[in-house]
Amino acid sequence: MATAIPLGVLATHLDAVVEGDSAVCIDGVGTLEAAGAGQLSFLANPRYRRQLAACRAAAVLMRPDTECPADFAGARLRVADPYLAFARASRLLHPLPPLESGIHPSAIVDASAIIDRLAQVGPHAVVGAGARIGPGVAIGAGCVVGGGVSIGAGTRLHPRVVVYDGCVIGAHCILHSGAVIGADGFGLAWTGERWEHIPQTGRVVIGDHVDVGANTTIDRGALEDTVIADGVKLDNQIQIGHNCVLGEHTAVAGCVGIAGSTRIGPRCRIGGAAMISGHLEIAGGSEIAGGTAITRSIGEAGVYASVFPFMPFAQWRRNAAQLRHLDDLSRRLRALEQGVGAAGVADVSPSEPSESA
Amino acid sequence: MATAIPLGVLATHLDAVVEGDSAVCIDGVGTLEAAGAGQLSFLANPRYRRQLAACRAAAVLMRPDTECPADFAGARLRVADPYLAFARASRLLHPLPPLESGIHPSAIVDASAIIDRLAQVGPHAVVGAGARIGPGVAIGAGCVVGGGVSIGAGTRLHPRVVVYDGCVIGAHCILHSGAVIGADGFGLAWTGERWEHIPQTGRVVIGDHVDVGANTTIDRGALEDTVIADGVKLDNQIQIGHNCVLGEHTAVAGCVGIAGSTRIGPRCRIGGAAMISGHLEIAGGSEIAGGTAITRSIGEAGVYASVFPFMPFAQWRRNAAQLRHLDDLSRRLRALEQGVGAAGVADVSPSEPSESA
Amino acid sequence: MATAIPLGVLATHLDAVVEGDSAVCIDGVGTLEAAGAGQLSFLANPRYRRQLAACRAAAVLMRPDTECPADFAGARLRVADPYLAFARASRLLHPLPPLESGIHPSAIVDASAIIDRLAQVGPHAVVGAGARIGPGVAIGAGCVVGGGVSIGAGTRLHPRVVVYDGCVIGAHCILHSGAVIGADGFGLAWTGERWEHIPQTGRVVIGDHVDVGANTTIDRGALEDTVIADGVKLDNQIQIGHNCVLGEHTAVAGCVGIAGSTRIGPRCRIGGAAMISGHLEIAGGSEIAGGTAITRSIGEAGVYASVFPFMPFAQWRRNAAQLRHLDDLSRRLRALEQGVGAAGVADVSPSEPSESA
Repeated sequence: MATAIPLGVLATHLDAVVEGDSAVCIDGVGTLEAAGAGQLSFLANPRYRRQLAACRAAAVLMRPDTECPADFAGARLRVADPYLAFARASRLLHPLPPLESGIHPSAIVDASAIIDRLAQVGPHAVVGAGARIGPGVAIGAGCVVGGGVSIGAGTRLHPRVVVYDGCVIGAHCILHSGAVIGADGFGLAWTGERWEHIPQTGRVVIGDHVDVGANTTIDRGALEDTVIADGVKLDNQIQIGHNCVLGEHTAVAGCVGIAGSTRIGPRCRIGGAAMISGHLEIAGGSEIAGGTAITRSIGEAGVYASVFPFMPFAQWRRNAAQLRHLDDLSRRLRALEQGVGAAGVADVSPSEPSESA
Repeated sequence: MATAIPLGVLATHLDAVVEGDSAVCIDGVGTLEAAGAGQLSFLANPRYRRQLAACRAAAVLMRPDTECPADFAGARLRVADPYLAFARASRLLHPLPPLESGIHPSAIVDASAIIDRLAQVGPHAVVGAGARIGPGVAIGAGCVVGGGVSIGAGTRLHPRVVVYDGCVIGAHCILHSGAVIGADGFGLAWTGERWEHIPQTGRVVIGDHVDVGANTTIDRGALEDTVIADGVKLDNQIQIGHNCVLGEHTAVAGCVGIAGSTRIGPRCRIGGAAMISGHLEIAGGSEIAGGTAITRSIGEAGVYASVFPFMPFAQWRRNAAQLRHLDDLSRRLRALEQGVGAAGVADVSPSEPSESA
Repeated sequence: MATAIPLGVLATHLDAVVEGDSAVCIDGVGTLEAAGAGQLSFLANPRYRRQLAACRAAAVLMRPDTECPADFAGARLRVADPYLAFARASRLLHPLPPLESGIHPSAIVDASAIIDRLAQVGPHAVVGAGARIGPGVAIGAGCVVGGGVSIGAGTRLHPRVVVYDGCVIGAHCILHSGAVIGADGFGLAWTGERWEHIPQTGRVVIGDHVDVGANTTIDRGALEDTVIADGVKLDNQIQIGHNCVLGEHTAVAGCVGIAGSTRIGPRCRIGGAAMISGHLEIAGGSEIAGGTAITRSIGEAGVYASVFPFMPFAQWRRNAAQLRHLDDLSRRLRALEQGVGAAGVADVSPSEPSESA
């Protein structure tokens, strides 16, 4: 499904310098190992340079200073950031399929919804009263777009996305299947005997160029809005609680949970399966390692981590058992340092190493 | 979309005492910072009392003994539990939109299903043979309700919920989009060469006043039923394995996983992203901190936690490396206490601090 | 909905020896505690042998050498692996409901799709151009099957599964509701100011006899394919990143996240909520405990774990606080062993036990 583009033309688009035959036609992309005739590859990490020798790609993107082995028969595209250039080349070679604008006869669109004539509404989609769907928008099969929802130009909803009433989605976003935007936040008051509901009267407001992964959920605000700023990228199966604010160009990997009312600054990078508690402030530019539990605000950008290192089960069991006594261990060590010795800490019962964790 | 209610009428509903103009009309809710004319706010935590001075809300719910700054121009609603009163006021001001009862012409409803004439079945919904849908039930767009399913009065399924055959859902529940009720539990037997399926012949039985969040999944039982008791509140992206039993009014925050056959008592509070192993018993009233891994039964109510504290990456790396040697460290400390010294523990190889974690 | 089968016939299918009345008809399965007349149960773990005395099942599967109390009035089915035999008996007694082959009139099937005449396409399902659906396949209500997708014989998609364009699903698979196969991987390049998309030009290729749980997501490959080999069993809410390869008969429990480009060998068992980083190699036959974070490759099969043991909150807080100082603690201990004492490590500031974690 790729377009064919002469290497010279591609180079112009990428601000790259061709070393080799700029007339060769490129019609696809591939890894250094798998790319064949007509395909473009890239070398971003110099560590993989030796793979060039056996590489059969028609052309390879690489840095201006990368030494290229003589065995490599293809063209070299010299460029400052080969990975970024590859991303761009790949988009040129694999453009999104054109929209077939119009409303599928099986879609149920409320008469008061305003659907741009250049938008596409897929089979079995449902669009509620007063929704506004911009030009170039694609509403995939089986999507449900609630009343009063606004979706900006060029945004694509893959099949079976749900957007609850009143939410706002900007332009040029991509929402993958199963995403749920604007369900009620987990707002409850305890009576002493049971939980009572608190209506969630805020919205979800999503900026431009935002990606939302498959089965990711973003709750509507309780009173104010939940806000996802321009350029935010969310992977699959992320949960974002009510009233969260995510700053511009923050990227969040899969399976992350962000509890309610937490504000995350711009340009953060949050690793997969991280868990972020509610009502925190995370400084812009922070990096959080995968699996890390963030339980307090982060005032200063930096790299943070909290994962227990994995080890063979028997070793883990012995070490983890000691964790229950780490505070005791610390006190006992201090007592020794102060010359008190074991006799002085008789109230401390050291654990048996065999204790189960 | 809010109703307007005179403050005096609201006060009667809330068992509150008005200090100020009880004729003012309230038509919305807001935070102390954002609420404006005609809006109601609340002060639950005395820490935020100073915000009252600049608050422009028409009225604020507060405790009888809360000192209110003279600068606050609005009315005061004195009430024992301002947060709970706020929840109730908000429900009065934001009632659920009325149901448009009837079956949408695009819905596919089996001839043998019994749909109460006061129920609503939305566009593109599917209802299977022998299903029984009570009065005031809303089946949202694109929902699939299996054969023999029973749904009690007043329960609302948001768009695209799936309920598998034979499951039972009580009255006045709310199920959010993407929830899947009654998929097969993960029941497998190993032949020595491959996995074989075990039919999951139980159901999911959900009580009354239960909430199920977006993309939450509850598996049907293997032989017995999976049971969610009255008043349980489940947030988004929770996974509940086959044969689990959750007791009355237990609340579970987002991203929690509960493995099969675990029984959780009533009135527990389980923090986000907690992981609970299978075949456990958790005492009623237990509180489990977010991100905690529960690997053994809990016999006594209490607050439990297990999260590794987060820290800057370099610090984490040094400390985590030592975790592999914690048991050794404990033995060496004991040897010192007993006057043996390092010579006596020569078999122990202390780790290098620079070791990667 | 169960079939009735005489015990003798069942025994033949299971390679079991009947002790008792082989003419009794079995029409269901149950636990030792709950099974009644006409029902079959099993005793796999000898620990539960005492439950036999009160068991009212018509027959119980047990090992040849299990002593059966005289109080048990039912028949005994002697078999080498009672649990596996139970799985098979249960499948015989609870066969899948027969397919009603044909395309529901409300389904939208592209004219170029090839649907076997023994396949079933449910209400409101959508099948794209050039898709090939094999015999005995069931496409549940509201599923969306993209263009060019191929689905092998006997595979069942429960309601509301999405399969993106070009993906391949083998024979005799089961995909549960809400599963999303082939959404874009999280492929981004940073420009220095914002993220740019990298088209995901690979597919998802799923083998035969694979199960995919409810709301599980499997991303398509970036350049190569994401591959799920024959016999893999995936529970609910699992996320599998682009370019992952899962080997034959590997089983993954719920809520696991596997980041991109990780290769997991055959016959692994991965516990619930485990998190596996990207670009790793996990040796075949590895077992990973629930909740474990795998951050490095595993070269050798074994059992691995990493969970912080849970404890009462106050105890956790004290111990967790010390974790920030574990490396210091280790250095101080070594200093003591070397006879230096506290004076020699004056640069180390021991933490206060009361420090918050």
